[in-house]
Amino acid sequence: MSLLVVGSVALDSVETPQTTRDDVLGGSAVFFSYAASYFGQVRLVGAVGEDWPAEHTELLKSRNIDTTGLQVVADGKTFRWRGKYAPNMNDRETLEVHLNVFGEFQPVLPESYRGCDYLFLANGPPAVQRSVLEQLPQAKLKVADTMDLWISTQHDELLDLLRRIDGLVMNDHEAKLLADDENLVRAGHTVRKMGPKFVVIKKGEHGAMFFSENETYVMPAFPTPQVVDPTGAGDSFAGGMMGYLASRGEITPKVLKESLAYGTIVASYNVEDFSLDRMRQIERPDVDRRLGEYRQMLSF
Amino acid sequence: MSLLVVGSVALDSVETPQTTRDDVLGGSAVFFSYAASYFGQVRLVGAVGEDWPAEHTELLKSRNIDTTGLQVVADGKTFRWRGKYAPNMNDRETLEVHLNVFGEFQPVLPESYRGCDYLFLANGPPAVQRSVLEQLPQAKLKVADTMDLWISTQHDELLDLLRRIDGLVMNDHEAKLLADDENLVRAGHTVRKMGPKFVVIKKGEHGAMFFSENETYVMPAFPTPQVVDPTGAGDSFAGGMMGYLASRGEITPKVLKESLAYGTIVASYNVEDFSLDRMRQIERPDVDRRLGEYRQMLSF
Repeated sequence: MSLLVVGSVALDSVETPQTTRDDVLGGSAVFFSYAASYFGQVRLVGAVGEDWPAEHTELLKSRNIDTTGLQVVADGKTFRWRGKYAPNMNDRETLEVHLNVFGEFQPVLPESYRGCDYLFLANGPPAVQRSVLEQLPQAKLKVADTMDLWISTQHDELLDLLRRIDGLVMNDHEAKLLADDENLVRAGHTVRKMGPKFVVIKKGEHGAMFFSENETYVMPAFPTPQVVDPTGAGDSFAGGMMGYLASRGEITPKVLKESLAYGTIVASYNVEDFSLDRMRQIERPDVDRRLGEYRQMLSF
Repeated sequence: MSLLVVGSVALDSVETPQTTRDDVLGGSAVFFSYAASYFGQVRLVGAVGEDWPAEHTELLKSRNIDTTGLQVVADGKTFRWRGKYAPNMNDRETLEVHLNVFGEFQPVLPESYRGCDYLFLANGPPAVQRSVLEQLPQAKLKVADTMDLWISTQHDELLDLLRRIDGLVMNDHEAKLLADDENLVRAGHTVRKMGPKFVVIKKGEHGAMFFSENETYVMPAFPTPQVVDPTGAGDSFAGGMMGYLASRGEITPKVLKESLAYGTIVASYNVEDFSLDRMRQIERPDVDRRLGEYRQMLSF
């Protein structure tokens, strides 16, 4: 499969009511690519500083993640984020953000990546996301994530991006903000009419919603009693979704729906431990087994 | 079918960001019995005052709801509630509560109700709910609702009730409070271990979760773009669920799951207008049609 992700590569510090972990492997492109790697090869584009532990790159490579596009910036420092979760494990507060090399990141796709058909633009400034689109004009499926900051501060650039992509993945708060509507069903379709053929709204512990011209549906989260660290759940969801899509090679309503189910399942593993720790313990058969339980759960 | 509900019968005043409606037909037993009436006859126990419009009783009777158990208290006034919804239509503030005759309500089951097999105890003081249980000792399925007030102020009485019922229906906030756990999956099972064979946690726009010894599942809400007034959604859910169960006459895991789906669908109609206005426009075939869409939505 030919799947490419452009996004952040980070060292996260995560505080939960039970535990704190400092400087663990994180970043949207990392969660995405690991989650997608259950389905085949993934090509990663990102930037880190000289403080980046080589073992993290080795881990990604061991999963068939191509890191040719991971720039190591001389004299630079890796993006760092520190966040604290509320007891409900859904709300979180950002305590520190040091963009470091990610702040100046101008993604350049290696020559060997230019034939990729499936592209995921993890959250980043819309103009930077657009510059990646322009480097991969023939991609078959272009999907982006975004965040509240760009909705508020780079609204026109974001609207321009929305007209150039096939799919948008965002969370419920962002969808309500962008559509200026508190009803998520209406908000999803309002955003869809801004350009993308489909919109996926992530609702955290409440699952995800899908909107296309002819379809509106909800997929609940897989109910896990063990929510240790939700960091990266949204990117793992997108990684599972895009990984499955790229592995299938066709984009039909049926395959899209299956891809949301796969995204849901991979994300449900991700939240069960810090960083990639839980995802590192599983393989594709585990994903398929839980998908089977999920399918059973939803049939009546 | 032989289904009995004991609960409030009220005149509600509802303020939404768009509209205000004063003194409309409401109350848990009303929403429940109307929702259950799509599946067969329902017997209602409640109390109203002399201010109660006779047309409301006529409406219920026209739906095959037996109002023999509806006491009209001389010189009494009907329970009144006034609430205001936030723009998200999920959070609400209670502006006024006048319990009136409901404050002194001691349910007495008419002789003709004594053979009922299916019993729903809508929200009320646990000791009052217990007094109803004792009047219907042979009931085949006893399900109760409760609220945060009783969890905080009548904890022991509530725990006693939980050991006497088969099922408990409550919302997510209440489940977290009762279990003292922010993780709903764990909270559901904690509450189940307090006595009931199964627990249903209602999550409003995010659907419902089911917990039994051998099963844990989630059913999302049916995504409707038209949320006009969520008042009574939880009671409509319970009514659809219990109505379907009573109509089937057997209580298996499969039938229970179908009953949650029916509850979900009936509730999705209820929120589409004030009071019973939307439910009054539909019949069982409408419910079955939307259930079909829902089943399709959840299959992949």
